[in-house]
This record gives sequence, structure tokens and C-alpha cells, in this order.
Amino acid sequence: MAGKDLPVSPLALPLPGMPPIAGIRLGVIEAGIRYKGRADLTMMEFAPGTTVAGVFTRNQCPGAPVEWCRQVLPGGTARALVVNAGNANVFTGRAGRVAVQATAGAAAGLVGCRPEEVFLASTGVIGETMPHQKLTAALPALHAALTPARWQEAARGIMTTDTFPKGAVRTAEIGGTRVTIAGIAKGSGMIAPDMATMLSFLATDAAIPAPALQALLSAGSERSFNCVTVDSDTSTSDTVLLFATGQARHPAVPESGGEILADFRRALDEVLMDLALMVARDGEGAQKLIEITVTGAVSDASAKRIAMSIANSPLVKTAIAGEDANWGRIVMAVGKAGEPADRDRLSVAVGGTWMAKEGGVVPGYDEAPVVAHMKGREVEITVDIGLGQGRSTVWTCDLTHGYIDINGSYRS
Amino acid sequence: MAGKDLPVSPLALPLPGMPPIAGIRLGVIEAGIRYKGRADLTMMEFAPGTTVAGVFTRNQCPGAPVEWCRQVLPGGTARALVVNAGNANVFTGRAGRVAVQATAGAAAGLVGCRPEEVFLASTGVIGETMPHQKLTAALPALHAALTPARWQEAARGIMTTDTFPKGAVRTAEIGGTRVTIAGIAKGSGMIAPDMATMLSFLATDAAIPAPALQALLSAGSERSFNCVTVDSDTSTSDTVLLFATGQARHPAVPESGGEILADFRRALDEVLMDLALMVARDGEGAQKLIEITVTGAVSDASAKRIAMSIANSPLVKTAIAGEDANWGRIVMAVGKAGEPADRDRLSVAVGGTWMAKEGGVVPGYDEAPVVAHMKGREVEITVDIGLGQGRSTVWTCDLTHGYIDINGSYRS
Repeated sequence: MAGKDLPVSPLALPLPGMPPIAGIRLGVIEAGIRYKGRADLTMMEFAPGTTVAGVFTRNQCPGAPVEWCRQVLPGGTARALVVNAGNANVFTGRAGRVAVQATAGAAAGLVGCRPEEVFLASTGVIGETMPHQKLTAALPALHAALTPARWQEAARGIMTTDTFPKGAVRTAEIGGTRVTIAGIAKGSGMIAPDMATMLSFLATDAAIPAPALQALLSAGSERSFNCVTVDSDTSTSDTVLLFATGQARHPAVPESGGEILADFRRALDEVLMDLALMVARDGEGAQKLIEITVTGAVSDASAKRIAMSIANSPLVKTAIAGEDANWGRIVMAVGKAGEPADRDRLSVAVGGTWMAKEGGVVPGYDEAPVVAHMKGREVEITVDIGLGQGRSTVWTCDLTHGYIDINGSYRS
Repeated sequence: MAGKDLPVSPLALPLPGMPPIAGIRLGVIEAGIRYKGRADLTMMEFAPGTTVAGVFTRNQCPGAPVEWCRQVLPGGTARALVVNAGNANVFTGRAGRVAVQATAGAAAGLVGCRPEEVFLASTGVIGETMPHQKLTAALPALHAALTPARWQEAARGIMTTDTFPKGAVRTAEIGGTRVTIAGIAKGSGMIAPDMATMLSFLATDAAIPAPALQALLSAGSERSFNCVTVDSDTSTSDTVLLFATGQARHPAVPESGGEILADFRRALDEVLMDLALMVARDGEGAQKLIEITVTGAVSDASAKRIAMSIANSPLVKTAIAGEDANWGRIVMAVGKAGEPADRDRLSVAVGGTWMAKEGGVVPGYDEAPVVAHMKGREVEITVDIGLGQGRSTVWTCDLTHGYIDINGSYRS
């Protein structure tokens, strides 16, 4: 965990400058939930009229905060977000629901809104009762100190095993008016498809009706967070929330969105992809970022399942950790995906060099560029299935001793 | 690989005494395929009239020997088995098929049978052309030296990354006549469900028609080899073959098998389970054998999928390596299985101590026996889903630095 002073991932990217977003004040505080000597409670307050969209884990045993968010999301409006690190409030039974209601109620009292306009997320250890009194006790001081300019502290406040804070910013135009999208994320393990992601919170000053906002977020997450896997494990707490404060003065956006949001969609997708790749770059123990592209599958969905089978294969991931372009294991992972594949049409390239084509080694292929590529921090694998037009790109990281170190003693 | 002198698994069991089976001569030789200074080629010759059954990998990209065996298995008779270690003859295109035909032809010439009565298996590196001339050159000397008493050498001859040889023996009665079943196996990684297993070869002196033999082997493998997983990766070469030489003088067994085989089935199931558990005990880097029982699922199949989701979770396996009874990760793995589950009915026990019941921590449960249990070599996890009568037990091992060591530099 963060308290262990893990070395920063060699794949880390610097946190960009994060400008204030009109209509948002935010801050962090030390609530002492689990960590000592660091902020572990983050709050955002949104201007009246803020709309919200969300995507959540598909794990069948979600945490109490996820259930709360799912329940209040259809309201479409948000006034506050409260996030704690150190305790996930998952598998905590009735006590978990009590903690959620108490926290939402306390935040609503401070902000002056209904509890159903307060969104919640928790990350950390599963199965331990949430000491929510520590949260509610810390909220008044936290709320009193909110300012528009504390995004970078928030990016740090939501970390658990993360080794670097993750943030991204883009600007876009809606009807000629400039708007900004800022986002932060945390996550470095228990990351897999069929989930929204770890925790990620995005905000914009644009004025976008909740249905249009939800459509953009759902589609964008599918192409970004849902294409990243670290260890095939799906968290019980994964949450992505996007808040639109409506402070920007652009032409009205219809409920159904549409062409007026084209540039906003582009910018949002870029923020989501930036954050998703930062999560892969901070995969527990990661030494290499791996990009896997599958082409020639019978469909895009089939290509994605094959790509994820490769990305989740411990044998592929350990080979890459060992800088071994072991394409035999890649073939194995294609075969175990259960998708249509014909061994004698398969081709495999590493770093752009085709090592195998149509079911066999490429005679006399040049090993030198492959060896050099494997020594780098970013490894590209391309597999052509040779059956159709389906394609997909996913990202993961290598499986190293660091993963074992971090996860073999998480609670100790 | 074996040449690296990996330390023997702390979970290893001794190889039992393996008696001759009437109608079988076997032996090993150094063919120099990849390893130096150890036997890497194993042959068995079967008496005329020997019947055969087989189950194979479900990987979509199987090796050439698997395709060969599938093709000749419907003949139902076998006269020889040739197994090499060091090269899997997988993803080797036309050259792979040529190697298979040459090897079967050479063995058939020595034994005096049709090539279609020769069964083949290969294990080792994927994607390198099989130097089958080394196999066919070594076969005459190997064949000339076959004897009935070399099971233990055969168990060693088929090893790759295995750290100990694996064998099991049982006797049974068919119509009052005693018969023997002997089996050997290899495998320690790339082990997952949806496959037959690694390589395992069993033989009996019983006289059992091929259809009855196949029914017994298919059912027995489902309950044993297909309930074991090391790393969720499915080999392209997994093969289990069972040969029945018909030398025992017991009453005739009908094609459909039936009650007369009840005791034989019991003995076969025990051999299969013994061998499957030895494979889990030799899981790459394994320090602990993990038995996972799921009860109360909506069906047995659902229970097995949930159990396998737990068994394949890197976060569960690393927690156990760290001797941490982290039942929160177990809950996570239940939830990601995609099977019916209700968080608020889940119960989790470790080593027989219920830590969580019906969706929450058991207040004041005694941690001492759990801590002591986690320090042992064999860890038992029980999960009750609370929804129905479905149950399943599967086995795996922990995920340790040893797995990374072995697989991060396999080819170097």
C-alpha cells in the first residue's frame, strides 16, 4: 500500500497542470481511516444544476458505495462527491449501508442538498467495517476548506497501491465556446475487463443533459478503461463518474446529445484513454507497458476476447518480464480464448517484426530488432487471426516479482 | 526447465513402487532433442489387442501430436506410445505433421503394426521445428531395450519443468479377478480447466472395450485433471491416454461397460485424482496446495466456475503465498465469476473456521486457528453461496516468486 513507500513505477507519467473547473470546489484531508500522515478523504462540491453520469463494476458482489451510486444515479444531478482511501466498505453487510447513508447525509447537510445528490466511492481493504464516524467527523473541516484549485491533491488523496498520481486534462469546443474536461484516477491492481475501472472522477464546466453525458461516458469507457487489464481480477468497487457543472456559456445541448458534442466526445475519449493507460502503467509491479492488437478476427468482440486472453495470460506476461519474445505462449493464449482461430492462418509480430506467419516461424526473420524491442519499456504485440475483419487493441503490463511482493503481504 | 535444477517442490510426494503391467514393455533413452544428459524419449509397446481411450486439450491451436492422436483414436486399438520432452511440436505448420508421420511410421516399423496404432505426445517449447530425425534415429535402440519394469524411468523421462516424477498405482477386481492400473503424469504450469491435463499415460492389464474405456476416462478426467488449475493457461499439448492390454483373465466386459466395472472405476478415479493432485503440488513455484470447495451454488457447474474463478485469481493466490487469509479477495473472485451470487448470503471459511457468514465478518471469530492453518502446506477454502445445492471442489497452488523465476526466463 502507499504507506509502504513502493518505488514509483518506471512507466510513470508526470501529473499535468490541472486548472480549476468552473462550478467545482474540492479538497482533501487526513481522516485517519487507515493510513497515517497522508490525506485519505477527498471531497468535491458541485454548483447547483450539475449533471452526472457513471459506470460501475460488473462484479456481482459490489461494495456498498457502488450500490448507493447506482441507486441515486438515475436522478441525474449531483452536488457532492466523497471518496475515501484505505477501506473499501465492501462485504460489510448492513454496517456498510449504514456507513453510506451516514456519509451521504453528513455531506448533504454541509452542502445543503439532498443525500441522493451526494456520490460516494471507497477504495482499500475489503471486508472490514468502515469507521464512518471518522469520515463524518472530518467532513466539516474538509468542506470548509474546499477551493477550486486542489485537483492535484485530490489525485493523491484517492491513491492506495498507486505509485504515482494520475490526472489528465483536455479542452474542447461546444458551439464555438471552449470547455474543459479534467479527470483523476487511481488503480494499479485488481484491474480487468467487465468493469468500469478503478476509481476515476471527471468533471467539466460544459452544460450537458445527463442522458447525453451517460451515453458519452459509457461508450468512452468501453474503449478505454474496459480495454485495460492488469491481473484479470475485477474489483468490487470500480467506479467512473463524470460531472458536468453547466457553468460554460455555450449553445444548449439536446438531451440526446448529437453532433454538437463531437469535439467534446473527442476530448473526453482522450482524457479517458490517458487515465486508463496510466492505470496500466501503474500496474502492480509493472516494468513494461504492453499493447496488444488483434486483427483478422471474425468480429471486433472476438478480437477483444482474444486480445484479453493474451493480456491476462500469466505465461505471456512473465515471458515479457523476462524480455523473451516467446510467441509460442501467445499462440497458446489465442487458442485458449475459445474464439474462432485457425492455427495455420495465425501470424504474430513483436515490435512490428513478424516472427510467425500463417502457422509457422518466418524462416530467417531478423531477431535483432525483436530483442531490442523487448528490452524497452513499451512492448507491442500484433496477432493476425487471418479469418475476418474484426480488430481490437488492449493494454496490460508484465507480471513481475513486484506483483508478488505487493500482493503477498497487502494487509500485513 | 529440468536442466536448471529447480529445487524440488516442498509439496512433492514420493514416487510409489510401480509394478509391471502384463502386456506392456517400456523404456527411455537420451535422444538429445533439447536436454543433455537425461532421458527425453519414452516408448511403450502394447500387446496385440490393446484398447485405448484418450482426452485432449480444448485449446484451439493444438500441437501436431494431439491432432494425430485425435485422428487415430477412433480405431480404438494401440500398439505403441512415443513421447518426447523438450519440443512440443506445436505451431510448426507442415513440418509438424511431417514429424508426426515420420515418428509414427518408424515406431510402427519396429513394432510391426500400422502407424495408426502408434500414439504420440510431445512436450516442451512451442514453435520450434521438431528435429524428428533425432527421434527416429533413437527409436531402434530404445525399442530393443524395452522391458516391463521401467515405469519409474518413464515417469522421469516425460518431465519438463516438473521438479518430481509423478506416478500412481491401484488394483481393482473385475468379476473376482484382480487387475492393476498404473499411471504417470507430467505437468507443472500452463495448467487450467477446459483441457484434459498435461501429459498423463495410464495402463491396465484389464480387458475393456474401447467405448467403455473412453467413458470411464472422460468422466474420471472431468472430476480430477479438469478440477486442477495452476495459472489459468491452457496448454496446446494436454493429453491423457489410457491403454488396456487385455492380459488379465476376467469375465468379458460389455462394450457399454456397466456394473462389472464399478470397482475398476473406483480405482481408475483414484489414480487420476492422485496424478492430478501431484500436478497441482508441482505447480510452478508452488509452496502451498490449495483446496477450494464451493457449496450452495445454483448448480454443480456454477459451483465449479466459481471455484475456478477463486483458484485462478492472482490476488487470492498471492495472498495465500503471503499466508494472509484475505477473504475479501475471495469474495471479489466469487463476484467476478459471473455466476449467480448474493453478497449478503455469502459465507467464507478458511481451514474450517468461518470468517464471514451471510455477507459480513463473523464478529469475534477466532483468528488463531486461521493463522496457524495459513502457515501450513495445505490450505482449505470453503465458500457457501447460500442459493442452492450445487457444489464443486478444485485444487490449485499459490502464486509465488518461483513462478516468475521459472517463467520469466524459460527459453534462456
